[in-house]
Amino acid sequence: MTQRVLTGITTTGTLHLGNFVGAIRPAIAASRESGVESFFFMADYHALIKCDDPARIARSRLEIAATWLAAGLDTSRVTFYRQSDIPEIPELSWLLTCMTSKGQMNRAHAYKAATDANLAAGEDLDAGVTMGLYSYPILMAADILIFNAHRVPVGRDQVQHIEMARDVAQRFNHQFGGGAEFFVLPEANVEEDVAQLPGLDGRKMSKSYDNSIPLFEGGAKALKEAIARIKTDSKLPGEPKDPEGQALVTIYDAFATPQQRADFRAALRAGLAWGEAKQQLFELIEAQIAPMRERYAELMAHPERIEAILQEGAAKARRLAAPLLARAREAVGLRSFAALAPAAKAKPAKAALPVFKQYREADGQFYFKLNAADGSLLLQSQGFAEGRAAGQWVARLKREGQSALADLPLPPGLVLDAAAVVAALAALQEAEAG
Amino acid sequence: MTQRVLTGITTTGTLHLGNFVGAIRPAIAASRESGVESFFFMADYHALIKCDDPARIARSRLEIAATWLAAGLDTSRVTFYRQSDIPEIPELSWLLTCMTSKGQMNRAHAYKAATDANLAAGEDLDAGVTMGLYSYPILMAADILIFNAHRVPVGRDQVQHIEMARDVAQRFNHQFGGGAEFFVLPEANVEEDVAQLPGLDGRKMSKSYDNSIPLFEGGAKALKEAIARIKTDSKLPGEPKDPEGQALVTIYDAFATPQQRADFRAALRAGLAWGEAKQQLFELIEAQIAPMRERYAELMAHPERIEAILQEGAAKARRLAAPLLARAREAVGLRSFAALAPAAKAKPAKAALPVFKQYREADGQFYFKLNAADGSLLLQSQGFAEGRAAGQWVARLKREGQSALADLPLPPGLVLDAAAVVAALAALQEAEAG
Repeated sequence: MTQRVLTGITTTGTLHLGNFVGAIRPAIAASRESGVESFFFMADYHALIKCDDPARIARSRLEIAATWLAAGLDTSRVTFYRQSDIPEIPELSWLLTCMTSKGQMNRAHAYKAATDANLAAGEDLDAGVTMGLYSYPILMAADILIFNAHRVPVGRDQVQHIEMARDVAQRFNHQFGGGAEFFVLPEANVEEDVAQLPGLDGRKMSKSYDNSIPLFEGGAKALKEAIARIKTDSKLPGEPKDPEGQALVTIYDAFATPQQRADFRAALRAGLAWGEAKQQLFELIEAQIAPMRERYAELMAHPERIEAILQEGAAKARRLAAPLLARAREAVGLRSFAALAPAAKAKPAKAALPVFKQYREADGQFYFKLNAADGSLLLQSQGFAEGRAAGQWVARLKREGQSALADLPLPPGLVLDAAAVVAALAALQEAEAG
Repeated sequence: MTQRVLTGITTTGTLHLGNFVGAIRPAIAASRESGVESFFFMADYHALIKCDDPARIARSRLEIAATWLAAGLDTSRVTFYRQSDIPEIPELSWLLTCMTSKGQMNRAHAYKAATDANLAAGEDLDAGVTMGLYSYPILMAADILIFNAHRVPVGRDQVQHIEMARDVAQRFNHQFGGGAEFFVLPEANVEEDVAQLPGLDGRKMSKSYDNSIPLFEGGAKALKEAIARIKTDSKLPGEPKDPEGQALVTIYDAFATPQQRADFRAALRAGLAWGEAKQQLFELIEAQIAPMRERYAELMAHPERIEAILQEGAAKARRLAAPLLARAREAVGLRSFAALAPAAKAKPAKAALPVFKQYREADGQFYFKLNAADGSLLLQSQGFAEGRAAGQWVARLKREGQSALADLPLPPGLVLDAAAVVAALAALQEAEAG
């Protein structure tokens, strides 16, 4: 079965070469594996917790979206969206909030870290702690559960939050799932072995150490200048050099083939000058980064194109999120009154029911649609090469109702009135049963 | 200026005569005052905090909606909706969550009451406390601020929560409002003097005392039986009776004219039998309640009608909520990329802009619409008797942009793509300024 893998992208700050090697490149590579359905989202609701500078938030979201796209994220394969474009997420978050014990939040790492710091400083335990910081594990659970993601690649510090998402999913399944699995229980994919690029000074590359090499900002010139500042030993040109433990070599490795790595080491041992080695490193990285940088510049010059891509991603994401939220609302009791038939009401001899219709279009493909009892269009399928495929979907929707809906591929751009479709499918099932 | 008054309706349990006299009747009367724009909402997101029985939640929402409608709530005058139909509320709630200090929530009454009880019982302070209970004052702030309500009628125990809503509104205005008032600072209307109907035993009528008189449930028969069980003294027929302090008389008063009150007292003093007095009380209440009970039964037999009324209410509410949320998102930095023009980009000689058009329809009325640059319809006005009125609205929208949008009366049923309208108005203002 296809595994859904969900990756949240922080939307504060500007990205550097270390982010590219440690996060962006491996995530994009993983999204190309078969049997994997990848979700990448810009965690901009989360960004509001830490940042209250609107211009920075706005700028950072744009730059980071452009970076991921320029780096080769294939939005025809993956679902790429902004968290804040999915209103189903904060709504599910509230349903989960009602099912989360406060005691569990007291034990969340991010909050514990804040109170420990306050304790050490002799401050009130909750000094400077916002409710955003305190309750974000619940929002994170909603991020994951709304897509029934199976796996969430995270650093070790986030494992606890994934466990909290499992917990609340389990509680929901137990209490409202009626025995069936309502939410998938997500698993943390701990990335023990994330490639951590060293910075200019050999420590981990990080903005806080001020030792980072820019990814796109400043162009080839800035890249070259940063590389020139990588610390080396003071061996002279012609002197044999030990490549091991050199930040320069580790960075080279991150972009090189095995053959290139061996050649580079041999050249250093044979006395290659550091200046020349830096030139080679620059050329190696520039060859890979330059086309991305060009795409990045092009995208940044046309923010409306990025907007369109993300709007499409949001529509794709909401086609999954909306039916799931509709089911969750139904489960907790937030039900359409129209479905609450009065107990005393006699069943009409032949109640008007929603209707599936199958047909063939001029394009030769087979389609189906679902009309409400009043004739209005509820759902329009994509085209199928074979009539049988359309027929099988209709049968499955009738049989499984809303749970089949989540799997149904829909024509791009179509956003369902999920509640209405779910209600119609339920009405059909009920009529079938009664 | 019109005052917006917002009233939340609890959606757990079934209502009794005391709820009618103490809450429903005065609220409906107040909604008929001039200069008041009333919002009534079924607080069903809040109901999830206390109740995990989905069938009860579903049933109670329906019954309570039917009760308010049967009691005479005029949905052409007021905005009547379910909280859970307004996705803008949980989303705003998250924005406010990021601006609320945890310390403030620690001091909220409902939470304090729970921890005090735990302390007394020797339990862990947070035992049995859910995050829903802990953080609901933030959801409540969102309930109020999303409509920029001026006044919120509450009991004394809720005053603190309204103050919290003021606080967070003030913080938002200060930090993101750019000096302008973004959110109205709501005020608590403390109802010092709520008519509290006594129950069968003379104590306050309350489900927890098991002393209540049903409102509609059980029909006239149940009403009569309950009245027969009201405690009186043991004076015999013919004996003079002291009406003061009698629950029966207090209940009578709640439904009687001053003349009827005086007559009833005189009759009791003259020796009216308690049995006869109860019959008079029954007839007095039944005359007022019976037509409502009939409407209630009719509504309960047609839940789809209540659904339609509430869907209309939700659409009306969202016409206010959506533009306000769009502005709030813009303020905190969750901005459309399309509006983030790259700094380096030269201004095109004549950019395509949205266009206002004014016209007269066959009905003799004047209208305007706003078309996007690509010709698609963004906004369609209601009809105005005078062309000048339409023109003034166009001028105001151009001048004030999105802040005028919230005040604009729209044709019923129209739900704006608020983000697109706000972006179009901003584009017009920018073109004007530049």
